[in-house]
Amino acid sequence: MFSQIEIDLQILDSNLKKMAGPRHPILYAAAEHLFQTGGKKIRPTLVLLVAKATNKEKKLKNEHRRLAEITEIIHTASLLHDDVIDDCTTRRGLGSVNNKFSNKIAILAGDFLFAQSSWYLANLNNLEVVKIISKVITDFAEGEVSQGLTSFDTSISIDNYTNKSFYKTASLIASSCKASTILNHADSLTQNAFYNYGKHIGLAFQIIDDILDITGQSKTLGKPAGLDLKNGNLTAPLLFALNESSILYKLVEREFSQKGDLEYAIKLIKSTSGIKQATDLAIEHTQTAIEHIKYYTKNSSIENLKSLSNLIINRIN
Amino acid sequence: MFSQIEIDLQILDSNLKKMAGPRHPILYAAAEHLFQTGGKKIRPTLVLLVAKATNKEKKLKNEHRRLAEITEIIHTASLLHDDVIDDCTTRRGLGSVNNKFSNKIAILAGDFLFAQSSWYLANLNNLEVVKIISKVITDFAEGEVSQGLTSFDTSISIDNYTNKSFYKTASLIASSCKASTILNHADSLTQNAFYNYGKHIGLAFQIIDDILDITGQSKTLGKPAGLDLKNGNLTAPLLFALNESSILYKLVEREFSQKGDLEYAIKLIKSTSGIKQATDLAIEHTQTAIEHIKYYTKNSSIENLKSLSNLIINRIN
Repeated sequence: MFSQIEIDLQILDSNLKKMAGPRHPILYAAAEHLFQTGGKKIRPTLVLLVAKATNKEKKLKNEHRRLAEITEIIHTASLLHDDVIDDCTTRRGLGSVNNKFSNKIAILAGDFLFAQSSWYLANLNNLEVVKIISKVITDFAEGEVSQGLTSFDTSISIDNYTNKSFYKTASLIASSCKASTILNHADSLTQNAFYNYGKHIGLAFQIIDDILDITGQSKTLGKPAGLDLKNGNLTAPLLFALNESSILYKLVEREFSQKGDLEYAIKLIKSTSGIKQATDLAIEHTQTAIEHIKYYTKNSSIENLKSLSNLIINRIN
Repeated sequence: MFSQIEIDLQILDSNLKKMAGPRHPILYAAAEHLFQTGGKKIRPTLVLLVAKATNKEKKLKNEHRRLAEITEIIHTASLLHDDVIDDCTTRRGLGSVNNKFSNKIAILAGDFLFAQSSWYLANLNNLEVVKIISKVITDFAEGEVSQGLTSFDTSISIDNYTNKSFYKTASLIASSCKASTILNHADSLTQNAFYNYGKHIGLAFQIIDDILDITGQSKTLGKPAGLDLKNGNLTAPLLFALNESSILYKLVEREFSQKGDLEYAIKLIKSTSGIKQATDLAIEHTQTAIEHIKYYTKNSSIENLKSLSNLIINRIN
């Protein structure tokens, strides 16, 4: 994506594959299965770019590389558990771990990766970073639970949706951007600026992901379309569309229980301005993100962070 | 169990129940369900006793209380995931969380508790303790995986079994005893002495648990007898018994696939010296445990730690 960190991301890939190691053949197979299928690596990309953006020599410390790995490990661990919870059978275009191996292996591999991330974190020798990132993992569980509690709840607001998306996605991205500045001994203004940048980038990213779940047009989605909808996870495009379609409302209320309901709902959402409104909301968040770092000296990393927001929006085009 | 920490364990109970809090009603219900059913609280008991044993004023610091909570939280999190993995329907004499709520809630509640323990750990402000305890969680996953890999494998040795038990149980107990001394700024000799005490107490505890799985006589077991056996988890009493019964060997090899196999296997184990040999092994471990702390000045906490080993062995009587 960005030439200045291309080699760094290759090093990250190689380190992630080495991590599980020969001592854990099954965990290794499960982790490798996920790591080798790639994914967008948005979290490590952000950590590395923020590291370079907030460091005079534009040099990465080993701690930054490790932090980048930690964010990808935590994200992968949460995917493993999510796929068991949502009974998802494909991930990143391949069979999910719970499907290819078993629920048991997926739970254990997730636990192993969460544990590994804690262990790596502790070895960064920076208590502030340990605290910030540990908090994120509690946010995950909270996000998932509140998502579960509001399944098929047509009364939830966009604010409520944004709140869920923060816990589920934006919290890790915001916190790891902040942690990256802390490892550069940045002042608290800078820490907060990049935290807010990450938060809004994370929210935009989640909205676009939710749009792709409906439109199903992206090659990079790698999972079946309409899955969130099917599980009753009501996202931005649907929430906007509900205001324009009373039939859609009925389909959700009966939890897509009749044959063809899900396909019909997707068709209805596409016929409203739901996707347009959701896209506008995502664009707003990317603009807010950029606003937060506008006073930082222009350099190639800051420029990359700005253009990243366009890349996120362009996923749906 | 021990009067000097009775009130401390009550405070621990009350803190654990408060932890999940009103923000997480479902997680709270799941956690409370487990915490209120009690359990033996062997891990916090050890942390508190070691804290008093290695502190001149025999006083607990707040950090010790928090460490005691962390050990119980980590243990409970691992139970939640174990019950999903092993498809266990009862726990501590009540319905397990996966059974009473759902697999989804059990996975999430486990993740939440692991995350909460990391967050509490980080806030102990002691990087050494963070590192030691984080390592334990990676040991858990490793232990579970190697247990899964050796299901129904009659060729595993007692050494292999001990190794699995270390990862599964003794690692957390040993590491939290050590961490308790670190919070008292103990020297490295003392740290290692209590680590080894905890390690051998943990191994003895696991062997007794495994005997109870076969004999099913304990009120405190709270889960169905023969469950380990059924899942192919071959433990000490069975491994010793295998040397004396070729029929038992056949039953295991065919994975108890015929009706009555499991009950017959239990009967066969009871007819051999398997349980006696396993008990002797557990007693040996408690003696080794006590050996490691014998040079410490006699005080009520050291005495309690010594008598704890008898209590562990007496669970089977």
